[in-house]
Amino acid sequence: MRTLDALDDAGRSGIATDLYELTMGAAYFDAGLAPTIGTFELFVRQLPENRSFLVAAGLAQAVEFLLAMRFDGRSIDYLRGLPVFSRAPAGFWEYLAGLRFTGDVHAIPEGTVAFAGEPLVRVRAPLIEAQIVETFLLATVNHQTLVASKAARVVQAAAGKGVIEFGARRAHGFPAALFAARAAVIGGCIGTSNTLAGQTFDIPVYGTAAHSFTMAFAHEAEAFRAYARTFPEHAILLVDTYDALEGARRAAALGAAVGGVRVDGGDLLVLSRAVREILDHAGLADAVIVASGDLDEDRIAALEAAQAPIDLYGVGTDLVTSRDAAALSGVYKLVMLETATERRAVRKLGAEKGTYPGVKQIYRSQDPDGRFREDVVALDTETVAGVPLLVPVIHGGKAGGPVTPLADLQTRARNQIAALPPDVRRLAHAAPYPVHVTPALRDLAERLHPER
Amino acid sequence: MRTLDALDDAGRSGIATDLYELTMGAAYFDAGLAPTIGTFELFVRQLPENRSFLVAAGLAQAVEFLLAMRFDGRSIDYLRGLPVFSRAPAGFWEYLAGLRFTGDVHAIPEGTVAFAGEPLVRVRAPLIEAQIVETFLLATVNHQTLVASKAARVVQAAAGKGVIEFGARRAHGFPAALFAARAAVIGGCIGTSNTLAGQTFDIPVYGTAAHSFTMAFAHEAEAFRAYARTFPEHAILLVDTYDALEGARRAAALGAAVGGVRVDGGDLLVLSRAVREILDHAGLADAVIVASGDLDEDRIAALEAAQAPIDLYGVGTDLVTSRDAAALSGVYKLVMLETATERRAVRKLGAEKGTYPGVKQIYRSQDPDGRFREDVVALDTETVAGVPLLVPVIHGGKAGGPVTPLADLQTRARNQIAALPPDVRRLAHAAPYPVHVTPALRDLAERLHPER
Repeated sequence: MRTLDALDDAGRSGIATDLYELTMGAAYFDAGLAPTIGTFELFVRQLPENRSFLVAAGLAQAVEFLLAMRFDGRSIDYLRGLPVFSRAPAGFWEYLAGLRFTGDVHAIPEGTVAFAGEPLVRVRAPLIEAQIVETFLLATVNHQTLVASKAARVVQAAAGKGVIEFGARRAHGFPAALFAARAAVIGGCIGTSNTLAGQTFDIPVYGTAAHSFTMAFAHEAEAFRAYARTFPEHAILLVDTYDALEGARRAAALGAAVGGVRVDGGDLLVLSRAVREILDHAGLADAVIVASGDLDEDRIAALEAAQAPIDLYGVGTDLVTSRDAAALSGVYKLVMLETATERRAVRKLGAEKGTYPGVKQIYRSQDPDGRFREDVVALDTETVAGVPLLVPVIHGGKAGGPVTPLADLQTRARNQIAALPPDVRRLAHAAPYPVHVTPALRDLAERLHPER
Repeated sequence: MRTLDALDDAGRSGIATDLYELTMGAAYFDAGLAPTIGTFELFVRQLPENRSFLVAAGLAQAVEFLLAMRFDGRSIDYLRGLPVFSRAPAGFWEYLAGLRFTGDVHAIPEGTVAFAGEPLVRVRAPLIEAQIVETFLLATVNHQTLVASKAARVVQAAAGKGVIEFGARRAHGFPAALFAARAAVIGGCIGTSNTLAGQTFDIPVYGTAAHSFTMAFAHEAEAFRAYARTFPEHAILLVDTYDALEGARRAAALGAAVGGVRVDGGDLLVLSRAVREILDHAGLADAVIVASGDLDEDRIAALEAAQAPIDLYGVGTDLVTSRDAAALSGVYKLVMLETATERRAVRKLGAEKGTYPGVKQIYRSQDPDGRFREDVVALDTETVAGVPLLVPVIHGGKAGGPVTPLADLQTRARNQIAALPPDVRRLAHAAPYPVHVTPALRDLAERLHPER
């Protein structure tokens, strides 16, 4: 069998989940808890090192999964064959075969800045449904939020120069590259090198040439002429296959056909200055310089501080893997149970890993000039000043509205980041943004030592 | 449109690639180089920090992609609509529509240990075909080799205790989780929590329960009874929702129904010892202890050094993201060109990023007791002692043989790692393994200063 065909299931199958979600499902079913309604909240416990804010992303794919999730016959046959399910409760397989997500989802819209301890997604659904979707929701929101948050830093460092996502080859497989490109654009990248991502998400795609292209011709100048002939209006020539400055001179010799050049690594400050001089000297003041090669926000900030004459940055590995902090610690915790007769807030205890019980809302307050002042995490039954961040996205298993275009998510993120206090959005040694918990929520947590 | 449907294309479409592969393709076509045969080699420039060897992985999916790769009408329409292709050469779209991978591939079999500078995959095909598949091959082999290599370290630290891959929720999206589970098993994990990975790759799946399960019942003891009722032979109970030792006592009270307990975080040495005592005291010497919670090879090594009574380790985030070194620097470089009249070795220059030209083979020599002594990277035309590592996997666009079962890849990796010199496979401060380049290859590189 072609294992890559499993990618299709990875976007819609009920078994795109950890096994324990399904064993718990069977035990809930067996214990008569299938009708119980559970509310789960997905939040990040701690901001990764060097991050002072998150840019929420991945919700669109989480919603798509919830709307499409099914157990087909093949997946049920697989589960039935597992030894652990040898005594699965009567009726459970029929229940799974008919299972659809019928719940409600609230979430912070993509592109919104968010902080540790704030629910990014809230799912209220029959317990088994809400439980089974945990793994996919976490994987999706953790990944895209991680990359969007990293991209925001890289874009901020670039100080207005365009940043293009170049990382497909170093992403955690091609599908990860696809969604990393989307998240990078939410975080502020102007485009991607990833063609399928360009098609799927309507993202501007960029590409120059690789060293192999130059090497495929007997002479570098011949390679440049060939590329410029095929792309007379768009030729960006990679000049450092052999020697960057010699290459830049050969590119400049082509005159107006040259849209720009790319330099891939080396001392980008020195090289970009020398290349700029060569281009300007040849009367090519409009030709752009694209820089790439192991770039991240720190290297870009240093280049910008030195006023490197770079027009566009191509950022790959560090961006798509968020290499300095390659995982987000998002968790998905049960906070409320509802039966026909009872509504009960619940919490996990534990010094390190305790959680706040009850269904929550986040309220963001702003100064008169629009600057964000503080967030308050409250019970959803409280009345608190500020803008509520969690909005409905799925109601009774149906999508709440049209999909927001990616460009709007990018605009939202840009505006949100601009509204952060300057010391919070600083790239290094940033101040923490104030997030408070209401006394009522704190009281509930303290009161709630569950009978064990 | 449902964007998750793009996952299907991510495993087979010709546009699952960087745009520049396609712009180069158009320029090759325009320049009459479509019939030129190119040989590319995929290798890792440098081992990541804290890694002294790699475990090759991802080849099976790379091969599947090569065999399936097509440009469908929709992807060609998309490309034709891009401004950069407004003057694409006549006949190029028809060429793409008919394009299939028709080349030859040699590769180091999955599960083989490998080192920096050694070609993991070698592709010989018409230039445009070989160029277009670069991005997918790199993304796939970089990702799975990264995770398999990390898994090998974690498994080594566990010193014979089973390691289960638990990381789906923190992987870079669910598809990354799917292939990370596969790679983790090649690297030595005994199973995964990922149900779809279990089905797709025939991997043993493991699962206990989450804290939410306990919280869904009014009393912890009630939750345990319910779980043990549904899984009378397989109940592994998560005991630390409220208090781990209290939970362990409640689990032990169920007697023989308890297959084991899981402790998720906290001081796992102290907790595992106390829990073991509770279980033994209750006559449950056979009940296993599963430990999880932010584990990596260093924490596991410390627990093993202290003889923590842990039977199984569940390792998530650090394993599936290879968090301490979250990217592999695999590259794909043109080394040889062939036309009807000429065969020409090529190389990229540059102090940092130069490459060795020519088609290569790797020869591994062993001591009489089977221990690996050294690898030699040679031109494939040389005669060198040792076992050649690169073997044919695709010939003329057709797969060379049946797919190797995952269990065999795991066995190969285990045997290979055992054959490494002990100071090379050490987890910290490992010695570098000797990899030499033959004089003939070095000479060729020195002679080859291409006319530019």
